[in-house]
Amino acid sequence: MATSNGHTDITDIDGGILAPRGFSAGGVAAGIKRSGRLDVCIIDAGRAVPSAAVFTRNTMAAPPVAWSRDAVAGGVLRAWVVNAGNANACTGTVGEADAEQMALTAAAALGCDPGEIGVASTGVIGVPLPMEVVREGIGAAAASLGTGSTHATAAAEAIMTTDTFAKEAACTITVEGVTYTVGGIAKGSGMIMPNMATMLGFVTTDAPLDADACHAALFSAVEATFNRITVDGDTSTNDTCALMASGAAPGAPVSIGPRDPAFVRIASAIEHVCAVLARMIVRDGEGATKLVSVTVSGAASATDAEKAARSIANSPLFKTAIFGRDANWGRVAMAIGNSGARIDPHRVDIVFAGITTCTGGIAVDFDETAAAEALGADEIEVLVDLNLGDGAATVLTCDLTYEYVRINGEYRT
Amino acid sequence: MATSNGHTDITDIDGGILAPRGFSAGGVAAGIKRSGRLDVCIIDAGRAVPSAAVFTRNTMAAPPVAWSRDAVAGGVLRAWVVNAGNANACTGTVGEADAEQMALTAAAALGCDPGEIGVASTGVIGVPLPMEVVREGIGAAAASLGTGSTHATAAAEAIMTTDTFAKEAACTITVEGVTYTVGGIAKGSGMIMPNMATMLGFVTTDAPLDADACHAALFSAVEATFNRITVDGDTSTNDTCALMASGAAPGAPVSIGPRDPAFVRIASAIEHVCAVLARMIVRDGEGATKLVSVTVSGAASATDAEKAARSIANSPLFKTAIFGRDANWGRVAMAIGNSGARIDPHRVDIVFAGITTCTGGIAVDFDETAAAEALGADEIEVLVDLNLGDGAATVLTCDLTYEYVRINGEYRT
Repeated sequence: MATSNGHTDITDIDGGILAPRGFSAGGVAAGIKRSGRLDVCIIDAGRAVPSAAVFTRNTMAAPPVAWSRDAVAGGVLRAWVVNAGNANACTGTVGEADAEQMALTAAAALGCDPGEIGVASTGVIGVPLPMEVVREGIGAAAASLGTGSTHATAAAEAIMTTDTFAKEAACTITVEGVTYTVGGIAKGSGMIMPNMATMLGFVTTDAPLDADACHAALFSAVEATFNRITVDGDTSTNDTCALMASGAAPGAPVSIGPRDPAFVRIASAIEHVCAVLARMIVRDGEGATKLVSVTVSGAASATDAEKAARSIANSPLFKTAIFGRDANWGRVAMAIGNSGARIDPHRVDIVFAGITTCTGGIAVDFDETAAAEALGADEIEVLVDLNLGDGAATVLTCDLTYEYVRINGEYRT
Repeated sequence: MATSNGHTDITDIDGGILAPRGFSAGGVAAGIKRSGRLDVCIIDAGRAVPSAAVFTRNTMAAPPVAWSRDAVAGGVLRAWVVNAGNANACTGTVGEADAEQMALTAAAALGCDPGEIGVASTGVIGVPLPMEVVREGIGAAAASLGTGSTHATAAAEAIMTTDTFAKEAACTITVEGVTYTVGGIAKGSGMIMPNMATMLGFVTTDAPLDADACHAALFSAVEATFNRITVDGDTSTNDTCALMASGAAPGAPVSIGPRDPAFVRIASAIEHVCAVLARMIVRDGEGATKLVSVTVSGAASATDAEKAARSIANSPLFKTAIFGRDANWGRVAMAIGNSGARIDPHRVDIVFAGITTCTGGIAVDFDETAAAEALGADEIEVLVDLNLGDGAATVLTCDLTYEYVRINGEYRT
C-alpha cells in the first residue's frame, strides 16, 4: 500500500471530508455514548450523487450493513447517517426496523427519499438502539450541517469509539489543468466497548465520477489499503467504507477504465486518502506501540505474497516479538510456512528492521544489540523475499502488547 | 474431542510411554539445554515394529521432519531419537546432515539400520545442532535404556522446552479377554525459547497392529485431539506425532477397519491417550489461566462446525475476554461470522459458561455478576448452536493473558 505520498502530483491538504466541494457535514452529541461525546453525524452531498460502498464479509453483518447494501445498489446516495456508541448488531428484526428508521429520519430532515440514505453504526452489540435519542440526534445533526474544517472534524469525532484521535485526510490532484479534491474520515480498530472492533471509512470527492467509476476506484483503493491492515485478524459485523462523488469540480464526466487517464489519476488520489487513513488506524491500534510494515516479495504470485504477508502480520508470536524488540525471524519463517503460499525453504531471505537475519533459509549472524536498537523505532519494516517469482504484497500491522490484553480483557460487559 | 474417559472399558493407568510391553526408554542431560536439564531421549521398541507418524504441514518443515517422513514411509521403525533445546530448523544442508547423523548415531548404538530410526528435534531455530554434544547424548541415552516409570518420565522430561510439567498418559482396554495397553508422552505449546512453539507426541502400544492399522488409528486420533487444540493458531516447523506398535500383547494380529472390532476399540484407546495429552498441552499453554472448550453444534456440516469452532478458539478478542471473565458473546458472534461457515444470523444460540447470552441471534438479558463468577472457573465451556444441521465440533483453547505477552515478548534472542 502507498504508505507515503509517492505521487508528486498529489498534494496533501487540510479539510478532511469537507475539503472537496459539494458536501456538508454535522456531528452532534445525541447521548448514545455515556461519555457525552459526539456520537451522531450526517455527511450530505445535497443531492443524490454517484456513490459506492464496500462492506464487511462477516456473515453476522449488522442491520445497518444490510440496509446500506440495498441503498447503494442503485449507484447513487445523497447522504450517510452514522452513529457511534451502539452497533445495532445482533438485534434481530428490531434492529432492522431501527436501521430503516434512521434512514427515514435522516431523509425527512434532509427532504429526500430514504433510499438515498446510507446508514452505519458502531459500538456495543446486542443492545437495541435508543431510538428516541437517535432520532433527536439525527435531527440535530441535520440542523447543524455546515462546511469547513470544524464541521469536517465534528463528523470525524462523531464516528469514534475507542479511537484515541480523530482520523481525517484530504488531498488534491490536478489532471489536464483541472484540480480534483478527495477527502475522508475513518474510525479504527479501537475495540468498540464492550464488544467488537469496527472499521468505518467515508470518502468524498468533487471529481465527476460516475457510479461505476466510484465503485471501481473505491474497491481497488480498499483492497490496497484498508484490506491490507490488521490489528488482530478479526473482522467486525459493521465494517463499512463508502465513497460519494459530488461532481462539483469542473471538467468532463469521468468514467471507469484505464483508457481514461483522469480516472486513473483520481483513483490514485482516492487510494492515497485511504492509505493515509488506514495507516492512522494501525497507528491507533489497541495498545499498539509500533507500526509494522510486512512486505513479502519474490512470491510465485501476488496472491501468495498476500497470504504470506498476512500470515506474518496476524501471528501473535510475531507481534509479541515486535513488542519485545526481538528480531525473531524464526517466527517469520514459521508464519510463512503456515500461510499456504508456495515456499522453497532454501530460498527464503528475511530482513528485520534493516538487519539481514536469514539468507537462503539459513540464519545469518547479526549484532543483537544493534538489532534491539533498530527495533526500538516507532516504525518497523520486515522484508521477506521468497525468491520464486514477481509476486509482492505489503500488510501493515502493529505489535501485541500488555495494553491490548488490558483493553480487551479487563473490560466487563 | 474426548476430554474425559467416557469409555467404561478404558482404564487410565500409570507408566506413561513404557506402560505397554515391548518398549524401553532413556533420557539424559546431554548439555544442549543451558539449564542442564534432560534434553536427549530414545524410545526403543527393540526391533523394527509397525509404526506411523504425522507431521507439521508447515512448508518450512525442519530437517528432522524430512528425515522421519522418509524413515516411516515403509511402515516400520525401531526407535525414535529426540532432542530438546535446538529444533535443527532453518539450518539448510548442514541441518539435513545433522538429522541423518542423529539417526546414524542412534542406529549404531542400538545395532540397527539408520532407516529404522525416527528423529525429532525441538528448541531454538536457525542454530546448527552442537553435534558433538548430541552424539554423546545419544550414546548415553542408548546406554541408559530401561523400563518402568522412571525411564518413562525421563523420556517425557527430555522432550520438554518451556512446558511447566511433563506430560504422560497411559490406559488399558480389554477386547475379547485380551488386555491391550497404550501409553504416550507429549510436549506442548510452551514457546520453544527463543523461537517457536512445537508439539511433539509419541504413543506406544503393545497391541499387534499392522502398519496400516497404526496409520489409520494415529491419523484419526490426531485429527480428533491434537488437531483440535490451539494456543495461538501458529503451527511449528517441527510438529511430529508418532505411534509404534510392539505387538507384545497376546492375541491375533489386528488389521485396519471397522469390521475388526478389536481395531476400533484399540483405536479408541489410542485416541483417549492422545486426548489426555492434548488437554495437558492446552492446560500448559503459555501464560494460560483457563482451559476453554468451544463446541459448535447444529452446523450445516462437520467441516463448518470445525471452521466456526476454530475461528472462535483462535480469536484474540475472544481469548482476552475469557481472561477478563467477560461473557462476551458478541466476540463469539463476530468470530463465527468470519469463519466461512454457513450461518443464519437469526438462528444463532450462544451459551457461555452455562449462561444463555444469545438466542436466535438476539441478546438475552443475563445476570452479569453470576456470569463473572461462572467465568472465574478454571475450565470454561462455550456452546454455539447454529441450528442449521447436524455438524458438530469441539476445539480446546486457553485464554490470552499478560503472561503470554511477557513470555513471548520480553524474551530476547
